[in-house]
Formats: sequence, structure tokens, C-alpha cells
Amino acid sequence: MHTDLVAALDIGGTKIAGALVNSGGELLVRAQRPTPPRGSGEQVMAAVEGVLDELAASTLWQSTRVVGIGSAGPVDAKAGTVSPVNIPGWREYPLVRGVRDRTGGLPVTLVGDGVAMAAAEHWQGAARGRTGALCMVVSTGVGGGLVLGGELHPGPSGNAGHIGHISVDLDGDLCPCGGRGCVERIASGPNIARRALGDGWRPGPDGDASAAAVAAAARAGDPVATASFERAARALAAGIAATATLVEIELAVLGGGVAKAGEVLFAPLRRSLGEYATLSFVRGLEVVPAQMGTDAGLIGAAAACRDVEPG
Amino acid sequence: MHTDLVAALDIGGTKIAGALVNSGGELLVRAQRPTPPRGSGEQVMAAVEGVLDELAASTLWQSTRVVGIGSAGPVDAKAGTVSPVNIPGWREYPLVRGVRDRTGGLPVTLVGDGVAMAAAEHWQGAARGRTGALCMVVSTGVGGGLVLGGELHPGPSGNAGHIGHISVDLDGDLCPCGGRGCVERIASGPNIARRALGDGWRPGPDGDASAAAVAAAARAGDPVATASFERAARALAAGIAATATLVEIELAVLGGGVAKAGEVLFAPLRRSLGEYATLSFVRGLEVVPAQMGTDAGLIGAAAACRDVEPG
Repeated sequence: MHTDLVAALDIGGTKIAGALVNSGGELLVRAQRPTPPRGSGEQVMAAVEGVLDELAASTLWQSTRVVGIGSAGPVDAKAGTVSPVNIPGWREYPLVRGVRDRTGGLPVTLVGDGVAMAAAEHWQGAARGRTGALCMVVSTGVGGGLVLGGELHPGPSGNAGHIGHISVDLDGDLCPCGGRGCVERIASGPNIARRALGDGWRPGPDGDASAAAVAAAARAGDPVATASFERAARALAAGIAATATLVEIELAVLGGGVAKAGEVLFAPLRRSLGEYATLSFVRGLEVVPAQMGTDAGLIGAAAACRDVEPG
Repeated sequence: MHTDLVAALDIGGTKIAGALVNSGGELLVRAQRPTPPRGSGEQVMAAVEGVLDELAASTLWQSTRVVGIGSAGPVDAKAGTVSPVNIPGWREYPLVRGVRDRTGGLPVTLVGDGVAMAAAEHWQGAARGRTGALCMVVSTGVGGGLVLGGELHPGPSGNAGHIGHISVDLDGDLCPCGGRGCVERIASGPNIARRALGDGWRPGPDGDASAAAVAAAARAGDPVATASFERAARALAAGIAATATLVEIELAVLGGGVAKAGEVLFAPLRRSLGEYATLSFVRGLEVVPAQMGTDAGLIGAAAACRDVEPG
């Protein structure tokens, strides 16, 4: 085992997770804090520092050489700042400087959480050994990251692969991002549930009106629930096909809660891909489920350090 | 002047052009043949060989080290074959092997014509020195190529940047490619003219019903002509914004006949970009006209040899 470790941070709107990760992708020490809801910038940073201090208390800390951060976006890897939509206290917040200061000047690599997930799938998951892949999280939002030419493609700012906010319906509904007809506006969990409810689907006695409940209804044959998943699949297919047509990928990897719907999503997705991925060089595109579990963010933040220059 | 030369070929549905290009991008010797309309594979190849033989007759041929080909697509750089939509005699035609044989075994680099155009703009045109750029041709069709991380990104098959065939309207009109709502189906010259005619625009006494005539009418204030260009601009904006959101580009370069419409296209394009390029990391995206002229295909085919491994 290589003795050099990465201190990995996975920063989201709900929790801030950290781990010391070895060169085999094993998480040797873990720490976690809740993200202070509606916290000030300093309060959120204090939670990050708490996680770092807990990691630094380990005897393994002396082998830690770099810090990798995967953060809810948008991020700005050049400036070292983050402005996560779901962490209002942080707007162009100088996270990299803060982490560097707290760790005695370790080099820090920052990428968006979709990029981190792609890094994890490329290192140890469904995209292992692949030349071109789009790795997506379909959940409350829709995010992603790209592998191009066999390497992670974070883009200059660390945000590349943001497939949730490309328009596949230029006259479509306004998206909270300001755009129109974005993939996320059609295919995210809340939008799958909203569309099913709007079209007359009703939750069962437990009152569960989530996308998971819509998926269960679709599996049981409910036509409105099925149609809502088919619509989501169509938007995902158009977005994945666009990505393949633009940059040539051979594989799309889907993770996140909505992807857990399984064939309710994947079957219409593969059908729709045939409608949108039409040119010869994209026709062989595969779509598979993600393989990494809940630690994908941490493993990906560690993996990103291998591929990306520290800021 | 560096003495090593590139034999460049620009292969389209109308003509097959060739040149010996020096390291400064100058075309020292030229040759050209019409593409045999409805010619067999061998007849089209004979025209290519005619161009190569004419170049080889020059005393400069002895300094020629490599051959660069930019071809109408799709191409398959891995297999060394081409299947240009507008050259029916060539389907998975082994162009690279044929050119290698005719040139005594010179290494041959093959890319699509959109990739070649991007290589030319990156080498000597509007994308010079840029890290991330989408270079587009908006004409009878809509094509393109990408610069990512400061380098040409042809993709494994040489077709990346095919922005004309990404869907920006998932429920839209069927495209000849088999897809739906493709950028080309909305924004190409023939589609701009078709839409204007369908909405009641009529050509002047000269009977010119081209996109250029629609552009002239729009400049003169015709509302239907203006609306057709605005619709094209909207589709281009959605496609450019999608590209920027997916891979992070800082610049879009527009060339081709339709781009010659000038502000009739560029003004609504910049407005629409504000609607679709909404995330922080894509808001600064610039759109500029192409700088390379009719030799872009040849210069780009030569430029691609500097960036891409020969097949």
C-alpha cells in the first residue's frame, strides 16, 4: 500500500463529509458534520474546519499530502471559491484558501460534485478504463461530470459536465437556473413527481408523493406514472445524445435516487437514445447504472487530486 | 521557414481541394477537382488521386512529410474510412489507406470538416490562443469542431463538435439525420428560408429565395424574415450554451454563409445566449465571426496534423 494519503471533502447542502483516502481508494478515517442550515459563511466554514480537525487528530494525518474537495456547485476552481446553490451563506466563498490555511498549507484541488462523482466512477466504478464517459447523478437535481480522452475533464472552472442545465426544449418551462427546458426541469425527481401529480396520479395511503413512489406505481402498471418516467427518460436521452454528439463519449453512467427506479427509467431511456443518438459515431453509446455507493463523493474528491492541478 | 510541408486535402460534396502547406500556414501549391456527382467510390477516389498527383508533380513534394485530410462527415478516424452524407459513392470508404498508398506511405491524419475548420480558427483565426472554443459553420448544414484545454478535440472518431445534430427541441421536427429538433433543422440556411416562406415572406423580383435574401429582407425591416433569423439564433444559442455548460468553452466562432448575415443573426444570438447560458461559469461566453476564409478547410487539415496522431 502506498503511504501517501488524500484528505477528501464532500460538501453538500445537508452534510460535510471528510475522509483520509489511500491510493487504493479505501477510506481509512472518516469525519462528518451537518451543514448548518441557513448558516453564515463562517458557520459553514467552522463545520468544514471541524471535519478537518477531526481528520488531523488521526495518527495517519502525517501521511496526508494533498486535499481534494468535491463541492456542490457552481464552484470556481481558478479563484478557489464556491457558490453552492443550496448553501446560501457561501457566495464566492474562498473555500480553498480556508482549507489550505487550516491544513498547514497543503495543496488543495477543488472540483464540482458532479465532476467528483465522475472521477470516482472512472477510478473504481462503471467507467473504469473508459475513454469517453458522461457520469450523471439524477436525484433532487441532475448533475454530471465527463471523462474525455481517458482523463477527467473538469474544465477550467471545475464545473464541466453540468448536463442538468442544458436545454433540450428551447421553448420549454422556465428553470430556476434562469434557462428554459433544462434536462433537470424535466428529469429530476421532484419534476417527475410534479408531472405525475399534475397529470392525475395520486399517492397511495402512505401519502408518499416522491419520485420513488411514482416509480413504484409505474412498475405496478400505472399509465400516468409510466408516462412521467418516459418523459424524464426522453429528456435524459436528448441530453446524453447531445453530449455524445458534441464530444464523443462511449458510455453514460447514471446514479442517484431517480436512477434507482431501474428499468422504469432505463428501458425508455435506451429506447429514446435510439431516437436522438442517430449519427454513426454515437450509435454504439451504452447506458449503465452507477457502481459507486454513498462514498462516491469522497472517493471522487480523492481521485480528482490525481487528475487535476491543485489551485 | 521550416521546410517540412503538409499535403492537405479538403473533401466536400462539390469539390476536392488540395494544397502543400508550410509551417506558417501558407498554401504553396494548389490543386482541385470537382467531386464527381453520383460517382462510384472509385470515381471519387480517382479525383482525390488526381489532386494528389498534381501536388506530387511539384518540386516541393520532396519536403512533404504528412497528409492531413478534412472530409465531409461522418468520418471514422480509427478505421480510416469516410461516409460523407453528400458523397453517396463513399460508404465506409477506406480513404486513408487509398491516400497512403498513393503517396508512397506518408502518415495520414483524418478529421471531419468541422474539426478542420476549428483547427484553422485555433491556429490562425478567431480562436487563436484560446483554451476552450466551439467553431461552427452555419451554411447549407451546421457543423463544428471543439478546442478544449487549449488543444483540438477531434474525439476518437474525428467527429466531435457535431453541434448541428444535437436536439434543442426534443418534440421538434424530424431531422434528415433521424433525430428531432436538431440545431441544423432550425438554423441552417435552407431551414431559415423554408420557415420564412412558410410564414408568408416572398422573394423579390429576382426570385432569390435563399437565406441571404431572407437576411437582406430582415435588414430592410421585414418582420417575417427577422423572425426566421431570430428563431435560428435561438436554436444556435441553445446549442452553444449547451456546449459551454457541458465542456466549458469561453468562445463560439461562427462562420459559413448564414453567419455572413451579420447582425441580423449575431444580435438576436447574443440576446438569446443570455437566456440559455445562465450558470456563472458560462455567462462570460463570447460569440464572434470566423476569421478564416475559403481556405480554412485546407489550412485546418494541415493544422490537424500538428494536433492529432496519424491513423
